[in-house]
Amino acid sequence: MKRTVLKFGGTSVANMERIEHVADIVSQRVKDDGGGFAVVVSAMSGETNKLVGYADEAAGGKLVGDQFDDEYDVVVASGEQVTSGLLALALRKRGFKARSWLGWQLAMRTDEAHGKARILGFEGDEFCDSVDSGEIAVIAGFQGVSGEGRIATLGRGGSDTSAVAAAAALNAEVCDIYTDVDGVYTTDPRIVPKARRMEKISYEEMLELASLGAKVLQTRCVELGMNHNVPIRVRTSFTKDGDEFPGTLVCNEEEIVEKQVVSGIAYSRDEAKFTLLGLPDNPGVAAELFQKLSDAGVNVDMIVQANSRTHGEQNMVFTTADRDAELARQTLENEQERLGFDKLEVNRNVAKVSVVGVGMRSHTGVATLMFKALSEKSINIEVISTSEIKISVLIDDAYTELAVRTLHTAYGLDTE
Amino acid sequence: MKRTVLKFGGTSVANMERIEHVADIVSQRVKDDGGGFAVVVSAMSGETNKLVGYADEAAGGKLVGDQFDDEYDVVVASGEQVTSGLLALALRKRGFKARSWLGWQLAMRTDEAHGKARILGFEGDEFCDSVDSGEIAVIAGFQGVSGEGRIATLGRGGSDTSAVAAAAALNAEVCDIYTDVDGVYTTDPRIVPKARRMEKISYEEMLELASLGAKVLQTRCVELGMNHNVPIRVRTSFTKDGDEFPGTLVCNEEEIVEKQVVSGIAYSRDEAKFTLLGLPDNPGVAAELFQKLSDAGVNVDMIVQANSRTHGEQNMVFTTADRDAELARQTLENEQERLGFDKLEVNRNVAKVSVVGVGMRSHTGVATLMFKALSEKSINIEVISTSEIKISVLIDDAYTELAVRTLHTAYGLDTE
Repeated sequence: MKRTVLKFGGTSVANMERIEHVADIVSQRVKDDGGGFAVVVSAMSGETNKLVGYADEAAGGKLVGDQFDDEYDVVVASGEQVTSGLLALALRKRGFKARSWLGWQLAMRTDEAHGKARILGFEGDEFCDSVDSGEIAVIAGFQGVSGEGRIATLGRGGSDTSAVAAAAALNAEVCDIYTDVDGVYTTDPRIVPKARRMEKISYEEMLELASLGAKVLQTRCVELGMNHNVPIRVRTSFTKDGDEFPGTLVCNEEEIVEKQVVSGIAYSRDEAKFTLLGLPDNPGVAAELFQKLSDAGVNVDMIVQANSRTHGEQNMVFTTADRDAELARQTLENEQERLGFDKLEVNRNVAKVSVVGVGMRSHTGVATLMFKALSEKSINIEVISTSEIKISVLIDDAYTELAVRTLHTAYGLDTE
Repeated sequence: MKRTVLKFGGTSVANMERIEHVADIVSQRVKDDGGGFAVVVSAMSGETNKLVGYADEAAGGKLVGDQFDDEYDVVVASGEQVTSGLLALALRKRGFKARSWLGWQLAMRTDEAHGKARILGFEGDEFCDSVDSGEIAVIAGFQGVSGEGRIATLGRGGSDTSAVAAAAALNAEVCDIYTDVDGVYTTDPRIVPKARRMEKISYEEMLELASLGAKVLQTRCVELGMNHNVPIRVRTSFTKDGDEFPGTLVCNEEEIVEKQVVSGIAYSRDEAKFTLLGLPDNPGVAAELFQKLSDAGVNVDMIVQANSRTHGEQNMVFTTADRDAELARQTLENEQERLGFDKLEVNRNVAKVSVVGVGMRSHTGVATLMFKALSEKSINIEVISTSEIKISVLIDDAYTELAVRTLHTAYGLDTE
């Protein structure tokens, strides 16, 4: 039997009118296919923030990450519970069999990391039987149940992960993520009006684009889809006729016939560049440096090491998120004596621009084209970092839009 | 170990400020006693109505009582879930160990009558262990879990019942119901300013007073307390110093040393009187009459039958709730031919006044005093009904306040 999972985010279920609209979309899908549907819902938009506000107040401040988190989850998970019941009611009103499923009923088993729990497994026999019987399963997203039998939430955006987990349990043909954008674009359409919606994109490319700031799908949701081979379709709920807006399918590379060398251009402005001058060229000094930053909770992204062997010293360049820049600076200054570097330079006016594409594996000259295109616009490259399917450069952030537009054209991604 | 259950209603947890105040009350109680506490909470006042409104809208109208009810319960039960998490957070902030318990975690087993479920049992081993370990258990009231593993709510006021069920499971010394009144009064203080707060009242008296309209405790909560011998204290949360307002203890008759002959005076204005003239004096005619009303969903309260054997006819008088009066009238008129009565008279301007007291069992002249006192004020009695601990009369509702005040004085209940 064909099984399908649909997921609707907070803006798609923001009020009763939108919930009725979602019920219409689901009704049409069920009529078209005859059954086999599970629907995952988020909380009404704004509701989660309200509940988090209450919980913060009750706890006396923001305390996520400590012993208060299990009760945070009890409070916050109620938002999805409400939406799941309401959508089940709206579907019954339309004459369908439907019922809600909460995290503990599924049972969506998680670890004990309240507020950012990971799904460990899914004892979904009763759930799968229900879906196969023709009953529409309406799942409260974002939540599971911990080993200790407590409600555990999956963190912001966790409903996407719930949906892919449900699709994996059902062995669903596709997991449709309905959202407020109509697909994944070759780059940010606000910067490049000629950006194109991609018909298909591989999991690997989507992961690179998501972690680089194309905030359509949560990283863990894409990872889960890749591990269980669940095709994920990103599409919009803000129109009635779904066929006009087919969205973007995130799937295995093998299923993409016409591969682009480069699929998309991502950028991030939340970057800061650190340069340590005169660091002693001893074994272990890099390990100690990055351990200190890690202990302070700073994530380091790009790292470039440039030795100048004649003096027994080296220069070290790395980047962090700009929001961590002050913390990183303080950490390094506190450790200057111990680490033994001469000088620290911090540049917070930088941006990272990346080209992503699985086609890079089999094509040469991709990086050369990038450097040449940027050079023609006199954009200076400060740092370069590459992976198998991605090339990232750090540039002066004043040139971000120009760089993205230039590369979008250079790799032939512009619409005609 | 001494165990105590505290229950706070919707107005006591109406907002974050009130929840903090409840946390202060609980903190003080725990400090005084050292542990052994379970706290039952309702939803923030207004929240349940909001959720019911959403659910009605999603279902396309008020549909309680049909196949929509299980999803109603999913939506509505979320209100108590939020409050339980918030109070647990507020107690942890004060340095106590605390955790929330939802209906399915307890597990508070109910029947399948969604929206008005009855508690069947309580698998509370883990819960009792937690309370005995010194952790404050914060229970989401109003909810249990059905045999099918769905959330089931206990109906309006059901959090009181949750509290008494928890107290029974814990074998608690007392179940303190904190509410917006400071106890049970000898009658409605709005009508009789000299009404007194009762120190103690028996379960039986409380049941008669509750069913007669003294809306302090839900009937089922008192029944449950009586069956499990749980002393229930009604007290107010709207003051910090609980000692000044000791409330009213609902307990076994045996624990009340100074018994009053009459404990309280109740009244109800939601009454209608039906008189059927010329009903055939055949066996079974009364059974048929009341069966028809029952089938139509009309609850009949007082019944008086006055035969006039010489004519082979009888007159039948009975009362219903005034809100059911039109339904009852239509039902009877539709069946006039079949039932064979001559005429139907309906009087909706009546009220029921009742005196309640376990002392009636051993004292004579209680009824005589009632009739005499009313007669002295020229209040005509239309119907009389008695039980072991209660005498009710039906009167013209214009005399309700006068009758209640007169009886309150006559039975020596006025404060000095």
